[in-house]
Amino acid sequence: MIKPNFRHKIGDRLVATAVAQDYQTGEVLMVAFIDEEAYTKSIETGYVHYYSTSRKSVWYKGETSGHTQKIKEIFFDCDEDAIVFKVEQLGGACHTGHYSCFYTRISPDSMTKTETQNMVFNPDEVY
Amino acid sequence: MIKPNFRHKIGDRLVATAVAQDYQTGEVLMVAFIDEEAYTKSIETGYVHYYSTSRKSVWYKGETSGHTQKIKEIFFDCDEDAIVFKVEQLGGACHTGHYSCFYTRISPDSMTKTETQNMVFNPDEVY
Repeated sequence: MIKPNFRHKIGDRLVATAVAQDYQTGEVLMVAFIDEEAYTKSIETGYVHYYSTSRKSVWYKGETSGHTQKIKEIFFDCDEDAIVFKVEQLGGACHTGHYSCFYTRISPDSMTKTETQNMVFNPDEVY
Repeated sequence: MIKPNFRHKIGDRLVATAVAQDYQTGEVLMVAFIDEEAYTKSIETGYVHYYSTSRKSVWYKGETSGHTQKIKEIFFDCDEDAIVFKVEQLGGACHTGHYSCFYTRISPDSMTKTETQNMVFNPDEVY
């Protein structure tokens, strides 16, 4: 199996950076870290798994919520320490109920924040 | 100035993750880290600066090549430790001559790699 270069040390774990992008619209859904175990499970199952730096364990995205990320395409960057997963996102990627985690727009002078997206689910009903 | 949460420790530096995305097509151009100094310079100049984990210093993207990333929009994710910069990319983002660093497509079973993009510049003429 071809694997990325897990060269970033976060805590005691070697990881690569993983970006999930909507395979149809190109919207960036979330950014997280992935270790070798999470990458292998992603390939074996066809669904994205990450490495949670807070829980220090592999995390099957959508395991609790059902909001899984089905892998459509995989890209490595030039030094192979970052991955783009083009995915079919069920429900929403964000635990807040938003489709993408990147729903906070910062003004160009970084003086104001605006919430940009509508909710796609109610987190109180999902978690 | 509103700043992201620089909570990932890489080496001795606290960083956030930064994604540059083409502001028109949504193509992901590159993924790197950004520290507080690089973020502040990005906001002050309007052009993306990163933190280079190999050189251990702030890096004005395009300083050598002229292939700068002009900031059009900025988004933070839900826990504010990742940033999407929607940018106008001059030339190409990748030192290899590709427009995006994510030019290597991995087959879904991770058994083969394919180079997907055409070159937009000749690196021998730029660096």
